[in-house]
Amino acid sequence: MKSFTQFKDYDSANELIETALHYKKYPYVDASLGKGKRIGLIFLNPSLRTRVSTQIAASNLGMEAIVLNIDQDGWALEFEDGVKMNKKSVEHVKEAAAVLGSYFDILALRAFPSLTDKEKDMEEYIFTTFAKYAGKPIISLESATRHPLQSLADMITIKEQKVKDKPKVVLTWAPHIKAIPHAVANSFAEWALGCDYDLTITHPPGYELDEKFTQGAHITIDQEEALKDADFVYVKNWCVYHDYGKIQMMGDDWMLTEEKLSASPNAKIMHCLPVRRNLEISDEILDGKRSLVQEQANNRVFAAQAVLSKILK
Amino acid sequence: MKSFTQFKDYDSANELIETALHYKKYPYVDASLGKGKRIGLIFLNPSLRTRVSTQIAASNLGMEAIVLNIDQDGWALEFEDGVKMNKKSVEHVKEAAAVLGSYFDILALRAFPSLTDKEKDMEEYIFTTFAKYAGKPIISLESATRHPLQSLADMITIKEQKVKDKPKVVLTWAPHIKAIPHAVANSFAEWALGCDYDLTITHPPGYELDEKFTQGAHITIDQEEALKDADFVYVKNWCVYHDYGKIQMMGDDWMLTEEKLSASPNAKIMHCLPVRRNLEISDEILDGKRSLVQEQANNRVFAAQAVLSKILK
Amino acid sequence: MKSFTQFKDYDSANELIETALHYKKYPYVDASLGKGKRIGLIFLNPSLRTRVSTQIAASNLGMEAIVLNIDQDGWALEFEDGVKMNKKSVEHVKEAAAVLGSYFDILALRAFPSLTDKEKDMEEYIFTTFAKYAGKPIISLESATRHPLQSLADMITIKEQKVKDKPKVVLTWAPHIKAIPHAVANSFAEWALGCDYDLTITHPPGYELDEKFTQGAHITIDQEEALKDADFVYVKNWCVYHDYGKIQMMGDDWMLTEEKLSASPNAKIMHCLPVRRNLEISDEILDGKRSLVQEQANNRVFAAQAVLSKILK
Repeated sequence: MKSFTQFKDYDSANELIETALHYKKYPYVDASLGKGKRIGLIFLNPSLRTRVSTQIAASNLGMEAIVLNIDQDGWALEFEDGVKMNKKSVEHVKEAAAVLGSYFDILALRAFPSLTDKEKDMEEYIFTTFAKYAGKPIISLESATRHPLQSLADMITIKEQKVKDKPKVVLTWAPHIKAIPHAVANSFAEWALGCDYDLTITHPPGYELDEKFTQGAHITIDQEEALKDADFVYVKNWCVYHDYGKIQMMGDDWMLTEEKLSASPNAKIMHCLPVRRNLEISDEILDGKRSLVQEQANNRVFAAQAVLSKILK
Repeated sequence: MKSFTQFKDYDSANELIETALHYKKYPYVDASLGKGKRIGLIFLNPSLRTRVSTQIAASNLGMEAIVLNIDQDGWALEFEDGVKMNKKSVEHVKEAAAVLGSYFDILALRAFPSLTDKEKDMEEYIFTTFAKYAGKPIISLESATRHPLQSLADMITIKEQKVKDKPKVVLTWAPHIKAIPHAVANSFAEWALGCDYDLTITHPPGYELDEKFTQGAHITIDQEEALKDADFVYVKNWCVYHDYGKIQMMGDDWMLTEEKLSASPNAKIMHCLPVRRNLEISDEILDGKRSLVQEQANNRVFAAQAVLSKILK
Repeated sequence: MKSFTQFKDYDSANELIETALHYKKYPYVDASLGKGKRIGLIFLNPSLRTRVSTQIAASNLGMEAIVLNIDQDGWALEFEDGVKMNKKSVEHVKEAAAVLGSYFDILALRAFPSLTDKEKDMEEYIFTTFAKYAGKPIISLESATRHPLQSLADMITIKEQKVKDKPKVVLTWAPHIKAIPHAVANSFAEWALGCDYDLTITHPPGYELDEKFTQGAHITIDQEEALKDADFVYVKNWCVYHDYGKIQMMGDDWMLTEEKLSASPNAKIMHCLPVRRNLEISDEILDGKRSLVQEQANNRVFAAQAVLSKILK
């Protein structure tokens, strides 16, 4: 494997999930696989779980991880081609990515979308430009349209928790006060469908996701119908895709509560975190037995470790 | 030992001091005690000595330390219970602490007081809430009301420097331009009294500390009387406790100078740093032979190492 | 070697260059030289290459590197002597440097010039004050007037690339929108002259550098004449030295382009990065075969490794 930026195919996903579950039992079984190798964790945006879990995954494999908040520790990057750099950005991605590529064996990048330039976000302009000039295997720590390490951890969690072969998995939109990227929702749909789960997506009218990621899912604006008999409910806000980057309605009545789960008594609740309590999901759910959010976060370590080991091998 | 957040008892304090002095002679004697263990150093506030000395202490024991400026690198935390999170804070401590607890073997947290909500500060709301949800041994890197690693380093320093069994130790208030927490002063009083030293506290009227920490000390508003025949003088500013978080007077005449030490020729001067020169303490003292501030800072490494090793064992 | 802050002499420079080229071939040949040693990388200003390359150099030698953005992670420093600290700065360099000196075996500091106080900048007030109180070997990660690790990497690059004994090396001023320090230009001149290269410096009238660094160079305001038959062209902006810290003209016509290199067909182009594309140097050059900027950045690792190993030995 050269890079890890999105779902590839059913077999690869299963292999990564199995590897991760193996590392969860035996974290240090490959403790010298990464010896003498270095990974640069490059952040253009904040991160808690992704940052720490990837550092730990690298360390479990004997790799050295160096973290760089590039716009903060280093220099504000320019991504436009051919521009005369007489404004705020100090260094072009062409130079920065190539230099970092020469310093590290593997690079990992977090680059959120602009949510203003739809075309550039959709083509993953920042991520792919960086990857192009880095010239080294690259791992997505969340890009404009996908968050594959999160989705891999989610699939590991479902695999551990499911009691039937093809569980009903529901992705339900939740309210938020800010315009939030589509990456987690897109990626979750991509992986859940790729892993051949029975996926239902529910959201208020106008909040349709890019069809590229949702083909094969049952999509409905009726949250009640969607949640019925669910085995797993993944809660996530995202902003409007078609009227790009906008918030059309606050949708307070879309918050997930115990009451809404009355027709899905066995449903397990998932969220990638950070979660806004009592806005996206009620306290009663997050503090109760249905919640898998801690299991998901814990599996982030082993998802990253599986991906790193596959690149190293 | 499960956690380290405050003075426990005379015997435990002595054991930590002896262990620290042993590590000061032989820093690498337990170089593999922490092998395969990880500590997360979580900062809600700035830090120089605490940050670096704890990183070094962990490294001396073969532990991996990962530093996280959580509000900056990660997400602004919410600490209120039951709140609808539709404001600035992005992640609840319940999630963040539990996730970090799952990633690390030991956590260490710096959480300054608000200096506006007295009740919450006094009950160590932020620190104890984090500790509760972290579910792992936790070390205070300074909390709302205490700074125990500093006080342990201070006790190590006094132990090294004292020439009589029960030295006269004076804690004297000093001027400052900002409202400064009570943590260092409280903690120093707690440890000095617990170590059975002869403690005098002096401050301008109105600057009384919480009695919980000062019982057993001689307290006076007469700085001259307090300083007489002192063996150790600990200089520290703190804001008003009773009219919580306020500055009642600038108290320029409370700065410690050589002149004020005319009746205590052998007094050694201590300060936790950072110190404001010529506001809290005069240059002549800090640049002279009485000053122990560098010894205190240096002992921070071995204080942290003693605490870590006790938790690891 | 006790410290590394500037060019010393021809023999020392050559020895460092040879050592660096050896490490470039065999990075891990001294992998246990720095075992049990620690270096503190202290930043008062942003850094990408310097930060990461020095971390990697230390790691190649088995040393532990701890990075501190001191004004950000720690406390804003005061450098004035004798001042009453009742303003913004929280900690005096006297304390901070001495504490860090006690924590580390080697310190490295980045301290840009003020560009307002010429005298203090010229005497390297911040750097030398820090070094004085640190009391440990110190490495410049760029100070007010010099950037010796960059210049060493530049000399390594020229050594690797030159096809004649005494190549013609040109340092040419380039436009910028901000007032940029003289450190890289000074240092490059100092090292190129010290290495006995044929150095020409060209800049618009008024942009003369401090003569201390340029004696022995051919200096001209005629860029075309300067560039003729050049083997290496080092491009760099700097602000006015005599009317200190000012920008006298934007000098758009000083940008380096392919057209300007028509009379120097074999010229290799160098820049320390970050570079402002299409303001300092045109895209065509940076994306073409003349550019050595990546080689220079890559050599930063081995320059730092050579310096560290010489201090360790």
